[in-house]
This record gives sequence, C-alpha cells and structure tokens, in this order.
Amino acid sequence: MSRLDINIRRLKAQRACLNRAAELIARLPGPILELGLGNGRTYHHLREIMPEREIFVFEREVAAHPDCIPDDDHLFLGDIRDTLPAAARRFAGQIALVHADVGSANLARDARLASFIAAHLPTLLRPGGVVAADRDAGFAEARTLELPDGVAPGVYFLFARAPASGEAAVKAARSGAGS
Amino acid sequence: MSRLDINIRRLKAQRACLNRAAELIARLPGPILELGLGNGRTYHHLREIMPEREIFVFEREVAAHPDCIPDDDHLFLGDIRDTLPAAARRFAGQIALVHADVGSANLARDARLASFIAAHLPTLLRPGGVVAADRDAGFAEARTLELPDGVAPGVYFLFARAPASGEAAVKAARSGAGS
Repeated sequence: MSRLDINIRRLKAQRACLNRAAELIARLPGPILELGLGNGRTYHHLREIMPEREIFVFEREVAAHPDCIPDDDHLFLGDIRDTLPAAARRFAGQIALVHADVGSANLARDARLASFIAAHLPTLLRPGGVVAADRDAGFAEARTLELPDGVAPGVYFLFARAPASGEAAVKAARSGAGS
Repeated sequence: MSRLDINIRRLKAQRACLNRAAELIARLPGPILELGLGNGRTYHHLREIMPEREIFVFEREVAAHPDCIPDDDHLFLGDIRDTLPAAARRFAGQIALVHADVGSANLARDARLASFIAAHLPTLLRPGGVVAADRDAGFAEARTLELPDGVAPGVYFLFARAPASGEAAVKAARSGAGS
C-alpha cells in the first residue's frame, strides 16, 4: 500500500466511524468534543451530520479553512494537557461523543496523548457516550464497539462508556422480556 | 458534501487517474514529472505503481515524510516559475507523464499556475505523453482523455499530447486494416 492508499483508507474509516457514532448517539443528549481541529474537515463533517448538536473544539493553534473554525465560545485554545482537564470539570458526565484525531508521525507521542485523553473519558462521557479515535483510546469502563463494514481493525477505533447500572438493568429486563 | 467527503472524493479520483496514467504510458519510455511534492503521498504512490520509472519532483520547500523525499538529482527545488522552464529545456520531448497537484484554497492563483504549467506541456511531453492534474491544465495539442469509472468530471483531469503525425498515420492504417 502506498501512503496515498493508506491515507484514503484512514479517511474512509474515519468517516464511517463518525457516521456510525452519529447513529449511536442519536437519542443520547449532550455536546460533542472534537479533539484536534487540524484543517477542520472532520469538524465540518460532524456539523453536517449532526447540525443540531453543540460541538466544542480543542486545538493548540488554529490553521483551518475559515468556514471550519468554531466561534470563541466553542473553542478550547491551547495545549490539550491544560484544556482537557478544565473541560472535564465543566462537562463532567454530559458528553455524548468524543472524537480524537491525534495522529502524527510520532507514534510514541501519539500513544502518550491517547492515554492522557483516555484517562479523562470516564469523567467526561455520559453513560452510553461514544468515543471515535484514530488511536487506541480505550479507557476504564470502555466497551469496544464493532467497527462499520470495510473498516479494518486498528485503522480507527470506536468505544462506548458502559451504560449506567440502572440503564443496564432496564436493558437486561427488556432483553429478558423479549426472549 | 462535507469537506471530509470532498477530500475523500478528490483523493480517490487522484489515485484512479494516476493508476490509469500508469497503464496508458506502460509502453511509452521517458521520465515522470511530479509538480508539487506536498506531504509526498502521490510521489510515494507513483514510485509504488511504476518502480522502474525515473521521477523528478518540483517543490518550493520540502516538508514531506522522510521516505517520500527524492534524492538531490531528482529534486527541482524552488519556485516552479523558475524551475519548470529550465526543465523544459532539459527534457524537451522526453517526458512520459506529468502529474500536477497544484490545488490550494486560492482558485484564481491555482488557475494562473495551471495555465503556466499548461504552456510548458507541449514542449515537455513526448508525443502520446499523459498529464494528470487537479486543475484544468489543457494545453495546445491536448486530447482530453476519458476519466476512470467513478471519477466525476472536474474533480481530476487527464490529458494526452496527440501522438506524432507518423504515429497517428500508423494507428489509422492499423485501424483501417482491422476494420
């Protein structure tokens, strides 16, 4: 595979996982966190597939297309190691979806960043909340979700925070009633 | 379409056109010119699909993956308005394929650059030589080629320099003999 092939595979996997995540959270209230704005393409996509949803963006330095830049109230500008802990206090238990596209050419750095993000996910996410990520951001209480058709394991990742125990009980009861 | 959708469509069209170009020049000798290195993904792809072919790269400032940077003998470093005319003198009538990926957010600038490149293509290209481009780089003597399946018009462009008149005559004779 050429680097062009690899990039196409990655972007298609990313799109498929974001589309799947949008379906998964369709009935789950709460904002979205976009960790890393980059050129703004996935932020643009998230707004298009979930126009009613509030999205907060985390970026060290904005360098996106002008129509892909959030207003100041929805932008956490600075090092994510500072901004994410602050966001975790503000949004504790409210977030429906986190998208983390942290990938760089430095795999060791990316793995550390993914771990740092993962550590905040249980606090941020609403029970049943979803995480789509380009690195393994598995966290405590995470359930690994099945990937959409055509997405090879390891290219993109989908997790959900386990539903609250009450919810799980309701689900179990429903599932029992249906059998 | 989101910007993510548009980007995926563009990269798939680019790959399809480069693969088609490789087939078209399979029996045509001569080097390839890659106008614009960027992150090096298409250069990487060209090397993978045509490992035997000599490729010269034009770039103002190299910022590609380390494994996507040509050696000094295959790199024209600087403003293409200086380097391309020099290359046209050196490679006159020898080039089998030109790939021009000049796209930026500035459509007017891109159109001017595409015209500048187009003006040098008749000199550079071998008769029958192919041009793949992300902008309309149609040139004197250009034949517009059919796009591969799935590539929408205007997303990517394929041209060929008309074969030399002798070649055309041979082709016409063959085609006549076969009918």
